Amino acid sequence: MKFCSECGASVVFEVPAGDDRHRYICRQCDVIHYQNPRIVVGCLPVAGDKVLLCRRAIEPRHGFWTIPAGYMENGETMLEGALRETREEAAATVENEQLYRLFDIPHINQVYVFYRADLVGDFGIGPESLESRLFAEDEIPWSELAFPIVTDVLVDFFADRQKHHYPIRVTKPGPLWAEHTGHKPSKI
Amino acid sequence: MKFCSECGASVVFEVPAGDDRHRYICRQCDVIHYQNPRIVVGCLPVAGDKVLLCRRAIEPRHGFWTIPAGYMENGETMLEGALRETREEAAATVENEQLYRLFDIPHINQVYVFYRADLVGDFGIGPESLESRLFAEDEIPWSELAFPIVTDVLVDFFADRQKHHYPIRVTKPGPLWAEHTGHKPSKI
Ligand SMILES: [Zn+2]
Ligand SMILES: [Zn+2]
Repeated sequence: MKFCSECGASVVFEVPAGDDRHRYICRQCDVIHYQNPRIVVGCLPVAGDKVLLCRRAIEPRHGFWTIPAGYMENGETMLEGALRETREEAAATVENEQLYRLFDIPHINQVYVFYRADLVGDFGIGPESLESRLFAEDEIPWSELAFPIVTDVLVDFFADRQKHHYPIRVTKPGPLWAEHTGHKPSKI
Repeated sequence: MKFCSECGASVVFEVPAGDDRHRYICRQCDVIHYQNPRIVVGCLPVAGDKVLLCRRAIEPRHGFWTIPAGYMENGETMLEGALRETREEAAATVENEQLYRLFDIPHINQVYVFYRADLVGDFGIGPESLESRLFAEDEIPWSELAFPIVTDVLVDFFADRQKHHYPIRVTKPGPLWAEHTGHKPSKI
């Protein structure tokens, strides 16, 4: 941020009185422009013993497989956002949605909120996807998953499925994706 | 938003190509300035059969009781944010933190994430609080709670406590607060 989004004046980057962090401050408006983490919402569609993944048509990680997910929009609930992304990226409808997996990714100022849900009917390919496909556990392309959180959600899901118990977990992304792909975990 | 925060040019409010929502767009930078929901993190400190609430020293709802909570900051996890707010607002330390209650408040573009945790040792009064106090269920000042989400968290907590089972729920705020205070639920 270089300019105030309200008046167009140059901002300064200082610690406001009574605060303990640097903020972008407009001296002309006397406004502090706070910057906060963003929420990514998504859904793991389940059909029998398979899950629906999409192959990314966009960067980053073009050509790699992911769970339908994207930035939550103003004016929607987390579930509404997850269902919207599922429609947009996989042309899929789901039902029986359950909150499932949260991730903190503090180094990129993001929080991920994933639901799991039952796939209803057919699915397709959205504009940001090259391909959509159902995968059983032994078909998952572990070395071609797009992001650490995708690996973690799938590992958790197939383990939880064995026990018919799906506890809601909050963690940072784990090291499994990096181990499978050779990518450094800090990169994404 | 009136001006681009990167170059200071005036922004336009239009639907970008391939999008379906109005966004603030800078024609000079060719940048879309997305606006997304913000996360409020908090913690319900529990001591025996009592919970720790703070009386607000700031607007909105100055003088009313709330759970320690505030905007999540860049660079922290949700739990780190909840613990920071608990320290700042109630000078309190907790342990055994458990994810407990999520709220969608789409009309103000907010998501709330509350943990419950065990209060450790003493507590005090932060700069944004007039008072901090432990309340048993029959002492809760129901008509003097600051926000709908506070009422909902407390109602859920004391009901869950009876069953020794604390399921993680995601809802919009319910009507109980408005009923107790006479405020319209849409106001906050
Ligand atoms: Zn300004
Ligand atoms: Zn610009």
